[in-house]
Parts: sequence; C-alpha cells; structure tokens
Amino acid sequence: MYDILNKINSPADVKKLNAQELEILAADIREALFNRLTKIGGHFGPNFGIVETEIAMHYVFNSPKDKFVFDVSHQSYPHKMLTGRKLGYIDDACFKEDSGYTNPDESEHDLFNVGHTSTSVSLASGLVKARDLKGGQENVIALIGDGSLSGGEALEALDFAGSDIHSNFIVIVNDNQQSIAEVHGGLYQNLKALRESKGTAANNFFKAWGWDYIYEENGNDIQTMIKVLQRVKDIDHPIIVHINTQKGKGYKLAEENREAWHWCLPFERETGKSKFSFGESYTSITADYILNKAKQDKEFTVITPAMPMTAGLSQEMRAQLGAQYDDVGIAEEHAVAFASGIAKAGGKPLLVTNSTFIQRTYDQVSQDVCINNNPVTILLNFTSFDGLTDVTHLGIFGISAFSNIPNLVMLAPTSKEEYLNMLDWSVNQTAHPVMVLMPGNEPTSRPADRDYSKINTFKMEQAGEKVAVLALGDFYQRGEKLAAAIEKEFGFKPTLINPRFANGLDEAMLTDLEKNHQLIITLEDGILDGGFGQKIAAFYGLSAMKVKNYGLKREFYDRYNPEELLNKLGMTTEQIIADVKKIVK
Amino acid sequence: MYDILNKINSPADVKKLNAQELEILAADIREALFNRLTKIGGHFGPNFGIVETEIAMHYVFNSPKDKFVFDVSHQSYPHKMLTGRKLGYIDDACFKEDSGYTNPDESEHDLFNVGHTSTSVSLASGLVKARDLKGGQENVIALIGDGSLSGGEALEALDFAGSDIHSNFIVIVNDNQQSIAEVHGGLYQNLKALRESKGTAANNFFKAWGWDYIYEENGNDIQTMIKVLQRVKDIDHPIIVHINTQKGKGYKLAEENREAWHWCLPFERETGKSKFSFGESYTSITADYILNKAKQDKEFTVITPAMPMTAGLSQEMRAQLGAQYDDVGIAEEHAVAFASGIAKAGGKPLLVTNSTFIQRTYDQVSQDVCINNNPVTILLNFTSFDGLTDVTHLGIFGISAFSNIPNLVMLAPTSKEEYLNMLDWSVNQTAHPVMVLMPGNEPTSRPADRDYSKINTFKMEQAGEKVAVLALGDFYQRGEKLAAAIEKEFGFKPTLINPRFANGLDEAMLTDLEKNHQLIITLEDGILDGGFGQKIAAFYGLSAMKVKNYGLKREFYDRYNPEELLNKLGMTTEQIIADVKKIVK
Repeated sequence: MYDILNKINSPADVKKLNAQELEILAADIREALFNRLTKIGGHFGPNFGIVETEIAMHYVFNSPKDKFVFDVSHQSYPHKMLTGRKLGYIDDACFKEDSGYTNPDESEHDLFNVGHTSTSVSLASGLVKARDLKGGQENVIALIGDGSLSGGEALEALDFAGSDIHSNFIVIVNDNQQSIAEVHGGLYQNLKALRESKGTAANNFFKAWGWDYIYEENGNDIQTMIKVLQRVKDIDHPIIVHINTQKGKGYKLAEENREAWHWCLPFERETGKSKFSFGESYTSITADYILNKAKQDKEFTVITPAMPMTAGLSQEMRAQLGAQYDDVGIAEEHAVAFASGIAKAGGKPLLVTNSTFIQRTYDQVSQDVCINNNPVTILLNFTSFDGLTDVTHLGIFGISAFSNIPNLVMLAPTSKEEYLNMLDWSVNQTAHPVMVLMPGNEPTSRPADRDYSKINTFKMEQAGEKVAVLALGDFYQRGEKLAAAIEKEFGFKPTLINPRFANGLDEAMLTDLEKNHQLIITLEDGILDGGFGQKIAAFYGLSAMKVKNYGLKREFYDRYNPEELLNKLGMTTEQIIADVKKIVK
Repeated sequence: MYDILNKINSPADVKKLNAQELEILAADIREALFNRLTKIGGHFGPNFGIVETEIAMHYVFNSPKDKFVFDVSHQSYPHKMLTGRKLGYIDDACFKEDSGYTNPDESEHDLFNVGHTSTSVSLASGLVKARDLKGGQENVIALIGDGSLSGGEALEALDFAGSDIHSNFIVIVNDNQQSIAEVHGGLYQNLKALRESKGTAANNFFKAWGWDYIYEENGNDIQTMIKVLQRVKDIDHPIIVHINTQKGKGYKLAEENREAWHWCLPFERETGKSKFSFGESYTSITADYILNKAKQDKEFTVITPAMPMTAGLSQEMRAQLGAQYDDVGIAEEHAVAFASGIAKAGGKPLLVTNSTFIQRTYDQVSQDVCINNNPVTILLNFTSFDGLTDVTHLGIFGISAFSNIPNLVMLAPTSKEEYLNMLDWSVNQTAHPVMVLMPGNEPTSRPADRDYSKINTFKMEQAGEKVAVLALGDFYQRGEKLAAAIEKEFGFKPTLINPRFANGLDEAMLTDLEKNHQLIITLEDGILDGGFGQKIAAFYGLSAMKVKNYGLKREFYDRYNPEELLNKLGMTTEQIIADVKKIVK
C-alpha cells in the first residue's frame, strides 16, 4: 500500500515517475483519501475528482516557484500529499497536522489560507501583478471549480483579468457539473454547451470577456492533463483551461450522488453509511417549519445560496417546495438583494445560509435590505463558537458584523419554541428586516412568546437581586447554570434575563436593575468587540453598576476545542463564580 | 420654457403627447436638469444621456403597475420629472424635496432607495419572483448602465436570471461606454464588439448566459426607443435590451469629457466652470503622496475600484503612474483580493475607495486579507459624518463595520503630518493589514510620529487630571476645543488623548488614568454601536471610572445638516460641558 506515495516527499519526486508509476500514485492518493475521510470526514467529491489534475500540475510546473492558488482549497488534499504532507492522510496520528484547506503555515506550496469560494482568480491575479512589477517569470495558476464561478468575486476577477492582464496567467476551470448541490445559473448552460461541443460552442462566455480558451474533456487522465498543461506552461497571456472531470471519481456511491458526497462525516467504506446518526436538531426543525409554512402560505418562499442542507432541505424536500424555493448557487449578494425585491413586492422571503457566508453580503444587507427596511428574514446557521472551527468558517463574527446595521432586528432564540415563534413572527411581519441566529446547541424546550413586535424588550426569566445575568441566545442555558451556581454559592437569587434581541437595549429594564443590583454579567456566543455586551457596558458608563462581559476575543481562532477555549477565556461557570466573588460584597 | 414639461403631472400625461411634443419634452427636461445641476450639482452625464429612454419607458409602460428599477438611480432624474416631481428641477425652492436617487418616500413610482451600483437586476428579479408567486402580470424593467455591470452583485444576478427566470423580465443595458472613469474589464470588450457589429458579434456574453438579446444603436432617439420597448413589452421571458447612448448628451463639454461630467458641483453653464474652487485637501495630499511614492518605489502600486478621483488621481496622473496603477472598475471585492495577492507576492498595494463602498467587501477584507494577515493598505475617503450625507453614501459605519475584524489595524490620523506618516508607515510595513481613515475635516498641521509598529499605543497630547478626553481621528480638533473649554470652565487641566488606533485599547494608559481621573469622554466620527468608545466603556466596566461616549446613533441619517445633527445629538462643546458639570464634582 502507498508504494509510490511513500516515495513522494516533494514535487521533485513526482517528476521522476514514469506513466505507470503516476497511475499508481493516483490510486495511492485515493487510498490515502479514503483513509482520512472514512475516519475524520472532510471534502470528498472535490478531492476524488481532481487527483489526476493535481498530479499533472506538480509534474509540469515547479511549485513553489510557480504559484498555485486553489479556490476554496477544499480540493487541495492531493496537492498536500504531493508537497510533503502525505502523513496527514496515511498516518492516523498525523491527521490533525493538516487542515482541510491550504495553509501557508503548513507549507511554502500553499499561498493562502482559503475556505470561502470564488476568491482564487482574484488572489492569483494579484500574484501576477506583483510578479510583473518585480520582473519575475514564474507561472501563476488558479484552480477553480465550476460551482465557484457564480460568485461575484470570481466574476469580477474574470472580467478584470480578461482584459487588464497581459502576461502569464493560467486559470484551470474544473468542471464537474456540480456545485455543493446542483449548479444554478446561465453560465452553467454555457459550460454545458461548451462540454457538449468540445469547447467550440457559439457564445463562449470566457472568450466574450477576452480570455484565450482551451477545452479538455479527459480531465481525469494524467497523461492528457500533462500534455494540456505543458501546452499552456509559460504562456504569455491569460488563458482558461476548461477541463471536464468526474466529481467523486473512484467511489461509486460518490459518483452517483455528488451532492451527498461533496463533504462527508466519518463513514463506512463498504456501505457509505455515516458513523454518526442524528436526532432532532435546529436544522431539522427548520426544514419541518419550511415545509409546513410553504404549504399554508403561497407567498412564502425560501432562498439558499448553494447550501440547501444548511436549512435541512434534501433534494426531495426542495422538489416538494417547487416554485417556493430557489437555490441561487454561490451568489450570496444576489440572494440578499433578490430577497429584498421579493419582500418589496409582498412576498415573504426566508433566506438561509451560514453565519460565515453572510459576511459576503454586508453591503446588500445594509443597502438593499435595511435602508429600504424591507421585511426580509435572514436565518443563519452555524452561529456558534461550538460549530465550525476552521478559521475560515467561524460563526463568531456574525453578531459583531451585522448587529450594528440600522433597522436590522437581530433575534437570538434560546429554545425550540422561541426559535420557531421568532421565525414565524419574522416571516409574517412586514415592519422590519430580521436576522435570526439559529442556536448552536441542542434544542431545549421552554414556553415562548409569539409576538416580538415590541422591539428590544428583554425577557426577565427570573427576578432576583444583586447580580443580573444577561445570557444571549444559545448561551442562555449557560446563564441558567450560572444563575443556579450563584444562588448556591452566595445564597441569594440573581436575576436571569433572556435578552432575545441581540442588538438593542431594553433601557427601562436596564434602568430598573439599578435599584437592587450591583453587577451585570453578559454572556454571548461571539466576539465581544462590536457585540451585545459592550452596548450594555456603555449604557451603564455613568452608573455605579459594574458590568462584566463574557465572550470571545477578537481573534481568528483555528481548529480549537470549544470547551477548552471557554476555559482558556475564563468563561466556565466556576471561573465566573470566582470573578463574582471578587466583585460582589 | 418648460411648455410641455409643465403639463406633465404623471406618466399618463406623457402618453398623450405626439412625436413633436415628446421631442420638446426632452428639451424641457434637459433645461430643467441644467437649472438644478448648475445651482446645486448632482449626477450630470448619466441623466443627460438617458432622457429619451426614460420618456419612452413612461410612454410605453404603465408605472407604477409596471415596475422600474434604476441601477444606482443616479440617472433617474428624467423619470422623477415625469412622475410628479418636476418642481424639484424647475423650481429652485423645491430642490430639496427631491433626493438625488430613487426614493419610495417620494413617489410610488420609485421602488427602492438605491445609491450603490450593480443592484438593479437582483432587486428586480425579486419583484419578478414575487409577481409570479402572486400570479401578477405586470412588466418588470431594470435599467442598468454599462459601468455597473462589472460589479459582482450584477453579475451574480445576470447569471441567475438568465437561467432561473422563465417569465417577463426586461433589463435595459444603457451602454454609454463609460463608468465613472473609463470602463475596465473584458466584458467591455464584448460590449464594444456588440456595438460595432450592431449586436451580432460572436461570443455574446448575455446570450452565453441564457438571455434573449436585442441591440439598438439609437438609444437617444425617442421614437426608436418607443418601438424597441413596445417590441419587448409583455414578453414572456428575460431579455437584455442593449442600447447605445451618449453620456452627457446635450452639453458639449460633458459629451467631450465624460469622466469630469459624471457628477458635478454647481457650475456656470457657459463655461462649465465650477462655482467652487479648492485648495489643499486630504485628497490632494493623497494624490501627491501617491505620485512621489510611486516614483521612488517600483513595488508600490495603487488600486481604485472605479473611483480614481477619490484618491485625487486625474487622468494625467493615472497615465503617469502607468503599471503602478489599476482602476479595476466597479469591482470592490476583486480589488481587495487582488491587493491581497499583490501583498502576498511582495508588492506594496494601496487600495483607495470611499468608506461607503468598502462595505461591499467585508468578507474579502476579513478572509482574503486579514485571515492571511497580508500587508494591504486600504485607505478610505469620506469617512466622516461631515461628508456625503445621502443615506446611501454615509461614511459613518466604517469604524463599526470593519474595526472588529481580527488582525486589522485601523488608523485614525488627526493632522496632515500624522496622515502622511501613517500612510507611509503602512505601505512600507509587512506585518499587518491596515485601514487608514482619511480625515473629513480640513488639513491641520502638527508634528507626528513616523513609526506605528507598536500597535494600539495611544498618544497623550496633554497630561491633566479628573477628565480625560479621547478624541479619535478627525474629531481630535473637537477634543482640543473641548479640553480648552473644560479648563476654562472648571479651572483644571483635563487630559487629552489622540488614540490613533481606532480599534484597540492602550490598556496601560487606560489603567494609569484611573489614578487621577474620574471621567473619560470619548469622541468619535461614526456610529457608537460597534465603535471605539464602547470598547473603552467595556474596559472600565468593573472600575469606578465613569465613561461617556459621544458619537452618532445607529441610524440611517439622510440629507442632514452636519452641525445641526451634532447639536441634536448633544455633541457640541457647550452641550458636553453641561454634561460634565453634572458628573464631575
């Protein structure tokens, strides 16, 4: 096993192999992918489909002198194995040494830490610019999947480079006819026409934008790809190399169900079955809500930018929703403005995506939605520190980034009932743009109000004295625990407040607390800077009230253990109790 | 004068006119445009070029049943005159009744409050979606200029609608061969080829993406445009109507210099001369810096997304910069990632845009630049409440939105020397991504440090007692005034601090202040929520120190008088002194 891969310590070793050995290397890489992915999961389809191309890239070009930029970089695992990092795939003890994305801290062969889509052409065109300013001669190669092409950043960059770069720049478009779910958009009709005509179709979008262009249908054949890349190596102008590959190649189940196998949890290789099973989650609750609401209300419509599973929507459910559902593809900006238009014309749009991806559309939320005060509901999944922990996918910036946009109501539910009631209230009301933070913990049950139209009214869940705990959203359960611990430790009952609104102040309640409280504790699931607690602290700036904010630091945390992080930040119940002892007399 | 325009109170009146009267109406509209623009300024070229098209739109379609969406909406003045708002153009006393953009508060004929580019196709496709869900039959028409097409949001929407909309949707592409400055990008080569071939060129980008398409070269001919629009009215699928028009048509100077006449200040009609003249400004200082630095350092390069004038760069200066300058067109996302690539490869990129437009690229600043910690310098103009006051162009959200991104150093200079030193330090260092806030006030002179590598070190400009004034960036001069007034009023010398870093805390200095101060006053030129002062308040949450933050509320202010706003917010020196009296014993 790994006969050839074992010999590869750098790209120079790839160049020594003969054709047969290269084929064995491809098989070894797939075995190594199986080893890692069956055990710890990761991006499956993108890596299985690109093995041959990345072998050819390292065979033909000279990385790190020649520079590779991988879009999203969720397809860079073969590249990693070929650049000194095979142990992260073949040795279980080394899995953690390798992130699931390119990472300059791991290797000089990785240029950027990337995890969001559609950035490669733009980043690479910057490398081209600097090379030309410095008089360098190296090749710059961007590898981008068809799904990533629909993102505005990629399109802006293709437009720019097609006319404004006049030197070496190679963009490999890896066309596997799939985004995360199906591809959506007119440009995919063009890719299809180009595939079917072997690159000769009329109205070639790339050529229209000034690019030179070649097509290769056998993107999974190493020798073919070597020839293709040798042909474009050292080219003196920008060129698109459009290649046809098979997503998930080498695993029948993945070839047949490309959406399910874009990314995987640990699974059994024989059956493809996940080693985990899931019960009710906020995601499944969301899907149930969507299906019921759509049946009852024909003006209700759902939008996801390429991530239907983030709303729990299977292919079957999407079919059931019919015209009441749009996957707009990777196009978050359009998704938000589209929702604003729907709301303006009396529809009831619900846009669902991840906290990390809504970042791509700050301006659309602010301008297209909030200035116009159109009643769009934006539901965010993976909002918690206790969710995605890759530095490029953190949900912990959502409150800080979006809660300070005027007119936007940001709701932080604390239980299943409150979540559903808030969602339903938001979808049905017409007065506000609303962002709902899907809790990151397990669903819990507690009665909740149905009406949230009195904006910024906090809910006092337990009236007490001396200390008031304001526990936001999915940190409410931590607040409950803390309140109980305070009562046990100090012998008085503290006040416990569920703020519900993540970006406003219940000034009447806060003022009232001054009567018989000396300390406010805020707990929030996100960074402190720009968040909820700092607003509370500022409110009490001239008061005798002490305020202590608990939350995350402004930092790009990467692949951390969530509970360890809280401990490090002094946020465990025990640590907070110790703090309180120093403050409360 | 205004013989025909005077009779127009709604689109119904346009439909009654014969061909000759329509021509007179066009002339009347241009006269009315001259009346307003010579006296109060505004968008010139876009409106003069679109007169005939908007007359034809109202002649053929039935607004507000049929729905018009204007991209940027800086070309909507003729539309406004035809929908009951002519007094805003012909009666000087009524100028203020009309904003320079579409505004639903003004008229039911305006669907959105818009001021940023590239949003119309997406917003309009939402109107289409809601119409179809509700079973409506109206036409939906988006009007977008060629310059706006390069923005990611527009491209995402064109991709979506070209395949996923299967009902009436008309997108008029107003091709006047100009963005704000020249157009940049491969798609403009395609528009040129389409113009030159009267719409028949090979590789039609719109057709490639699934759109039906027609071309009309006489976009400034009313009868032609009426025929074209009658042909597409009630069409059952999406179509691009590509029209050729002349930007600035009807004013020779504007026809000849399209960049200078995109937007104008009040001017003399005979000569075209502006009624204002400008001396040294932070913008002119910036242009001088750029030209000198570029000469000395061949790795220094400047990027503007379509707004060279925001960096003070005239056409001549840009030519002088040569390869050390890229106007990437309206493509802010690409601009930022491009800069990140340049920095990664050892170039020294300076990206210049307005505070309001950097909003379009939150994710790129966070992911492409800051996670990678690449030393990009982003310089923002119009960062002040005392700058652009249209609701869509406010600079007051910049600190709140961007200062909470990890790794980003945000610098707020307080004088000409400090501005230049910060800019130069930032461009030359390689440790941090940096955002520099160009001051919104007049340049003042004061000695300043050259080295800012000790991040988050505030500068104590005056050591005093009892009260410490932390006056950020271009509010420093207000801080000076306030400190003097405090000394005069109370007889003690307060401390005056120039924080310099807008998003960090000098914890040592802040702790030290506790020794002999009881009140901290923060002054900042932006909204308070998520900003500088709230971090200070949170820092002192457990201390006896009182903190009072002065800044703007989280609100979409619109066309306000800046000084009146400060007064309303209680931020004048006198008002703050009155506050201090209540606090300081």
